Amino acid sequence: VTPLRWEGDRLQVLDQARLPQEEAWRECRSGADAAAAIAEMAVRGAPAIGITAAFGLVLDARAGRDLAAAASGLCAARPTAVNLAAAVQRVLDAGPDPAAMEREALALWEEDRRSCTAIGRAGLERVPKGARILTHCNTGALATGGDGTALAVIREAHRAGKLGMAYCTETRPWLQGARLTAWELGRDGIPRTLLVDSAAASLMKAGGIDLVGVGADRVTRCGDVANKIGTLTLALAAHAYGVPFYVALPLTTLDLELHSGDAIPIEQRGGDEVRAWRGVRFGEPDTPVYNPAFDVTPAHLVTAFITDAGVVPPPYGSWPSRGA
Amino acid sequence: VTPLRWEGDRLQVLDQARLPQEEAWRECRSGADAAAAIAEMAVRGAPAIGITAAFGLVLDARAGRDLAAAASGLCAARPTAVNLAAAVQRVLDAGPDPAAMEREALALWEEDRRSCTAIGRAGLERVPKGARILTHCNTGALATGGDGTALAVIREAHRAGKLGMAYCTETRPWLQGARLTAWELGRDGIPRTLLVDSAAASLMKAGGIDLVGVGADRVTRCGDVANKIGTLTLALAAHAYGVPFYVALPLTTLDLELHSGDAIPIEQRGGDEVRAWRGVRFGEPDTPVYNPAFDVTPAHLVTAFITDAGVVPPPYGSWPSRGA
Repeated sequence: VTPLRWEGDRLQVLDQARLPQEEAWRECRSGADAAAAIAEMAVRGAPAIGITAAFGLVLDARAGRDLAAAASGLCAARPTAVNLAAAVQRVLDAGPDPAAMEREALALWEEDRRSCTAIGRAGLERVPKGARILTHCNTGALATGGDGTALAVIREAHRAGKLGMAYCTETRPWLQGARLTAWELGRDGIPRTLLVDSAAASLMKAGGIDLVGVGADRVTRCGDVANKIGTLTLALAAHAYGVPFYVALPLTTLDLELHSGDAIPIEQRGGDEVRAWRGVRFGEPDTPVYNPAFDVTPAHLVTAFITDAGVVPPPYGSWPSRGA
Repeated sequence: VTPLRWEGDRLQVLDQARLPQEEAWRECRSGADAAAAIAEMAVRGAPAIGITAAFGLVLDARAGRDLAAAASGLCAARPTAVNLAAAVQRVLDAGPDPAAMEREALALWEEDRRSCTAIGRAGLERVPKGARILTHCNTGALATGGDGTALAVIREAHRAGKLGMAYCTETRPWLQGARLTAWELGRDGIPRTLLVDSAAASLMKAGGIDLVGVGADRVTRCGDVANKIGTLTLALAAHAYGVPFYVALPLTTLDLELHSGDAIPIEQRGGDEVRAWRGVRFGEPDTPVYNPAFDVTPAHLVTAFITDAGVVPPPYGSWPSRGA
């Protein structure tokens, strides 16, 4: 599974809003197209939207469009993940030569692919034999430039014969777990079981989960974690029932300029994501909705971080340097 | 809003599987019809299914059908709520005269109506001015013979001018919060906001909730609470962030024969409730699903019980007697 295809003069994006019913590709020919694909969640996952934005900028550079405007449009597409702004800045810095910017975008993608592999391997030491691993949202190939973050650990555990079961929360409102993670694992022949988000606590209470592994959209210096809405809920339940709670991320998801998670901007999305699904109404159109896309899990609920530079245990504050 | 209509020779059930799109009534002319309406969740909520089962038995008594078979079919329709078996037993005990059984069923309904009113009034003392109350599932008129349980407290707070906002979790997989609670509150002009189940913890963390109020399907002697899946999750978050967590119930929902919640049978439902909604697929048909309908919240997470005989604070173990 690869969610992105770079064709030199366009970026093809596997439309994740239409999975798993349909495998349709959406063509991006400009930074604006890429920003729209990100905002509408045709592509999602912190690393994958960073790569998409990088190529969006390359497309505008090739067409001689205003790069400052392109960069700000791309960064505004989704505010929470730190990778998006960092990728845009990195490709901007390589400019203005479009060929140099393209090389930078390809390098960024390749580095993310290697990061995923490294995360999977680093996480393996924390996986007991026969592990029943609970994961949230989609942190797999669809969300990254490689095998995934938390899902790379699940893949690696499966390869090593240590995986008992991957439990996937459905991840309301956008159903990344039901539509993307269960599908991705199923295609790769990895045992998986789907559950509603709010069934996870009872499964942990019953001793049915050995560890929780999630991804991250932004991690602060002190280890606070912005991630898909519902992550905090899982962390609280894991803490209550003594289940190890791991956050898997490439170091590019670290935001060392922020100390506390309180400073992370949390994207609020429209109410129709909750009130309806593909035209089928759950709630009435005039029902007011509270729909934050992310929440912040405090560092003290995280057993350890699994990074592309190895496992980072508490206390959090000093991190491996990138490329170390 | 009234989910049931008794017409002497049939029970009309407002089909809650079709709300809010359609207000359709489903006719029950036998105990088997009533059991099917309960199993398929055309009617749900511990008190409402008790009343439905009571009239199902009356219908079979009038038709001269086998009452033992009828009773066991009704009790098997859903195993977790204690009210169902208790209502069936009570109407059986009034038999075999169908007229006496009908009077008993009507009395049971009337008592539940009065219980709801008493619960609403009892809860008011725990509601601060401007309260932002989070509730789960549907515990309103649709779930009971009257104003509801936890929703009766919200209604009473609104009447008393103390309600700031009623936050309704959507309550996956069956969406009782989105489809029923938000609809019921909207019809009564009560301010409400809908959110996905897993957004509740972040709202509590941000100080946005003053108290949580939920219903119950069965409460044991020591105060363990079987209720809609997701209740435990909310209780853990409330505990973590110091938000009072109340469980509202008529005393008929107490099961004094059980000490611990571990002994409560938890209904497991089919995977299609999670994989699809009204023919729209979220996950692939072959995805394995874990779909428990209820979870058990341990007594130590409950701030107090709000009953039709007043507020019951900890330690739990001695309860007001029924009709006291």
